[in-house]
Amino acid sequence: MFKLDPDSRYMMPAHFGPRPLRKNPSFRYHNITSMTVPFITDRDKLAAYLPEPFEVGEHAVVTVTYVCNGNVDFLAGHGYNMVAVSAAVVFNGEQERLEGNYSLVVWENLADPILVGRELQGIPKIYADIEDHSIVDGSWSTTASHFGHKILDMQITDLREPTPEELQVYGRAPEGKDNPMGWRYLAAYGGVGQCVSEYTTFPSQTEFSEIRLGQGRVDWNHLTWEQNPTQYHIVNALADLPVVMELPAMVAKGSADLLLPDRLPRVIR
Amino acid sequence: MFKLDPDSRYMMPAHFGPRPLRKNPSFRYHNITSMTVPFITDRDKLAAYLPEPFEVGEHAVVTVTYVCNGNVDFLAGHGYNMVAVSAAVVFNGEQERLEGNYSLVVWENLADPILVGRELQGIPKIYADIEDHSIVDGSWSTTASHFGHKILDMQITDLREPTPEELQVYGRAPEGKDNPMGWRYLAAYGGVGQCVSEYTTFPSQTEFSEIRLGQGRVDWNHLTWEQNPTQYHIVNALADLPVVMELPAMVAKGSADLLLPDRLPRVIR
Amino acid sequence: MFKLDPDSRYMMPAHFGPRPLRKNPSFRYHNITSMTVPFITDRDKLAAYLPEPFEVGEHAVVTVTYVCNGNVDFLAGHGYNMVAVSAAVVFNGEQERLEGNYSLVVWENLADPILVGRELQGIPKIYADIEDHSIVDGSWSTTASHFGHKILDMQITDLREPTPEELQVYGRAPEGKDNPMGWRYLAAYGGVGQCVSEYTTFPSQTEFSEIRLGQGRVDWNHLTWEQNPTQYHIVNALADLPVVMELPAMVAKGSADLLLPDRLPRVIR
Amino acid sequence: MFKLDPDSRYMMPAHFGPRPLRKNPSFRYHNITSMTVPFITDRDKLAAYLPEPFEVGEHAVVTVTYVCNGNVDFLAGHGYNMVAVSAAVVFNGEQERLEGNYSLVVWENLADPILVGRELQGIPKIYADIEDHSIVDGSWSTTASHFGHKILDMQITDLREPTPEELQVYGRAPEGKDNPMGWRYLAAYGGVGQCVSEYTTFPSQTEFSEIRLGQGRVDWNHLTWEQNPTQYHIVNALADLPVVMELPAMVAKGSADLLLPDRLPRVIR
Repeated sequence: MFKLDPDSRYMMPAHFGPRPLRKNPSFRYHNITSMTVPFITDRDKLAAYLPEPFEVGEHAVVTVTYVCNGNVDFLAGHGYNMVAVSAAVVFNGEQERLEGNYSLVVWENLADPILVGRELQGIPKIYADIEDHSIVDGSWSTTASHFGHKILDMQITDLREPTPEELQVYGRAPEGKDNPMGWRYLAAYGGVGQCVSEYTTFPSQTEFSEIRLGQGRVDWNHLTWEQNPTQYHIVNALADLPVVMELPAMVAKGSADLLLPDRLPRVIR
Repeated sequence: MFKLDPDSRYMMPAHFGPRPLRKNPSFRYHNITSMTVPFITDRDKLAAYLPEPFEVGEHAVVTVTYVCNGNVDFLAGHGYNMVAVSAAVVFNGEQERLEGNYSLVVWENLADPILVGRELQGIPKIYADIEDHSIVDGSWSTTASHFGHKILDMQITDLREPTPEELQVYGRAPEGKDNPMGWRYLAAYGGVGQCVSEYTTFPSQTEFSEIRLGQGRVDWNHLTWEQNPTQYHIVNALADLPVVMELPAMVAKGSADLLLPDRLPRVIR
Repeated sequence: MFKLDPDSRYMMPAHFGPRPLRKNPSFRYHNITSMTVPFITDRDKLAAYLPEPFEVGEHAVVTVTYVCNGNVDFLAGHGYNMVAVSAAVVFNGEQERLEGNYSLVVWENLADPILVGRELQGIPKIYADIEDHSIVDGSWSTTASHFGHKILDMQITDLREPTPEELQVYGRAPEGKDNPMGWRYLAAYGGVGQCVSEYTTFPSQTEFSEIRLGQGRVDWNHLTWEQNPTQYHIVNALADLPVVMELPAMVAKGSADLLLPDRLPRVIR
Repeated sequence: MFKLDPDSRYMMPAHFGPRPLRKNPSFRYHNITSMTVPFITDRDKLAAYLPEPFEVGEHAVVTVTYVCNGNVDFLAGHGYNMVAVSAAVVFNGEQERLEGNYSLVVWENLADPILVGRELQGIPKIYADIEDHSIVDGSWSTTASHFGHKILDMQITDLREPTPEELQVYGRAPEGKDNPMGWRYLAAYGGVGQCVSEYTTFPSQTEFSEIRLGQGRVDWNHLTWEQNPTQYHIVNALADLPVVMELPAMVAKGSADLLLPDRLPRVIR
């Protein structure tokens, strides 16, 4: 008979044993290349997607980030691409107040980190085909699709070195601690009502060895149920968020660590 | 501010609204083509993977099933392939006793049904590249891999029409009600300990328009962590289940319905 | 030392021996499912893409055909999808006059038949990601993309059974012999000038077991070099062919044979 | 009517115009990462795959090279992976004698460079799924498959910095001019007999910014026609080449240029 070890970490299927991690597992991403496109949107429209007690941050900033993740330790050196959308928020909980970025949605092109992210961290990851970024005449671009229908195009042009002041501003947050937050939700069995609903934070640390700034844009494609039956409502919601002001976009290379021993993922209240 | 509608069905990300199903959604699979390879294994070895109160059935039968699912209604007519491994069991719960098949693992090549199956039904679905079946000289075969490393090869040869008696035996279970069961498990936040752990049944109905019987075989590939860091322990456990006796294998075509109004998915105790 | 056998059939790399076909190889496609969307276009615009001595046919008909090819004998039972565009033409050669369909371009999602088609038959095949067709509310659709950017959407709606008269008209050509033609072209080494340039015909035979007629449409996506650096000029040329009149579209199931012993592929002059 | 421009460069389909290259097109590969595993094999067995007038070089060296090509200019910044197998040879032609490497086969995971390489350069490229290399505990590995069946595994372990002497030896050839050679072959229409058969050289230049040496190994998988109907004879031939002596393996990063204005691709005689 199979018995759960109370000190081990399981995911479905649990009956074959705990997650097969190595001893002292590393969650290091050795090679990451990213495109970050932030913009200021309409406060009220953004607020409509934030569950209580999240509030729109001082500036209603939404950030779309593409990352090409290479040489990921817990995937035995394999990698994957992601497109993440987050909002600058304040978590105004009963027990704590936390400024940071709330994860609205994350597309990834590999199922393994999608399952871990959803179930263990509360990050709303879903699948898309995401092209490796391409560089033409100094402009960076990528695109994401599902079921053959495009979700978005991203592009960053006019890249230049940051000034020392900019380096402090744009290099700081990613290298530091930006309090990414999410909402781990699981429906009650059968679908109606909730079984698990908790707000979470999952700190990570990214170090950039190279940063350049430019002009970014994200072009969302409105979709129908017929085109993308599981995600069209998400894509359309994001496509309808107005771009009130574009902020400087960034391409960067570096590495990241998803496990910080002194700042473990935790539920926030 | 986003508020959950208590009568709606959500999955992460929940804050963009309920699962985008149509009115009176259909969960019909219009075209399924399957290869089923059952065998009798060692009772004790199989029992090691069954959590209490599941018990090995009268015969220690394990069934490996490949299905090419086409024209799936809730996926807007798209399809996907799966390889499912289940064991004949008896659920000996406090409140009920149920004979049926316990889902050991299901590989699928599309993330969307993986997420639904894991989170809403408690089916331990994970990802693999699964080739469409091929037919050479009347033999059917397929193969599944992940990260470029093969998980298994399946083959069915010597196909023939079933006798009327065989048609009753082999056609009955799939057309009828075979009580598929699973274990919906979600770790506590941070990974150690459990947050959700419940046994489930998720009846469906398959109708076959065409059945043929033959000799089946499944060749599992032993894998290392380096080859398949998220699944090698599952593959190796199944590779090590002895084939005590082969049972007749089957190829079949038909359709299925995952939602039976009078037999909804439910938790079993 | 490697020597070519003058009686064998080679493709690059030739030095490992002839094409590895079985004895009495079959080129049968056991399961094909197709969507055919024909329309009348502008004669002069179409003529601009026909090399001498091809002439636009009696009606300037262009046909876009999606085929899901399953269980292909020479691919050991594997399959692939294609989207073919052809024009009704008359070949007015020095030695013969032939009515049929000239292949303008064929996208396929598997490299193996692309190489065979280009090099041995003179069919201008190129690669695209082509979704399996999906069926929603009785409407059939599919889509093709490359490098993440869509090439076209195809859709057929309002499907109905053909009348006996229609069955004769629409069922006849595909079941019969429609003289598909192409242009096998190979540049001189280094790229400028020609090394091989010959017009070809490659008869095949398709038998449909099921035909339905409906309203078809093809939506081409104009592309830039940055989006599809190897094919954008082809896509844009087809996108700019006007639809002067839509003709009845067809979905069909059946099988095909690419090798007709009494009508072998040949060069036409 | 379509007419070929005699000064332009065409590939099938030619009737939509010349290859859509930019003005002064670049064939630069900005980011390449490679694994190179050379070994000495049996002279006679190798000679069996060399057409006259190629002869086995001074040492019967076969080299297996994996390359992850990123940011390729003529592909608008897209990339692809390849696994190339070549043999050290002497071309003993009527008009010239050339030492270099004869291309036995090249697998690539993108159709576009396959078509260009075969048709314009005479490189025997064919398709495979090729995983991005992964790095675990300092060991590099990758794998290639087709139709779900593995072709080979490559691995390089025990990596270390080269000595200055080694840097000269191993860094020199790739940075310099190594006379890659091939055999452009096209069958006569219908398949039997030849239409084009010419030996070629296609110089390129690779610059490595980083080189490390280690122990390499290539594990070939013997295959059947049923597993890989278009390539099994190639894979088996290479699997049967004995490894008489392993030579130092190399991982490297750098860039490459496929077009050298003073050393254009040419036919050799």
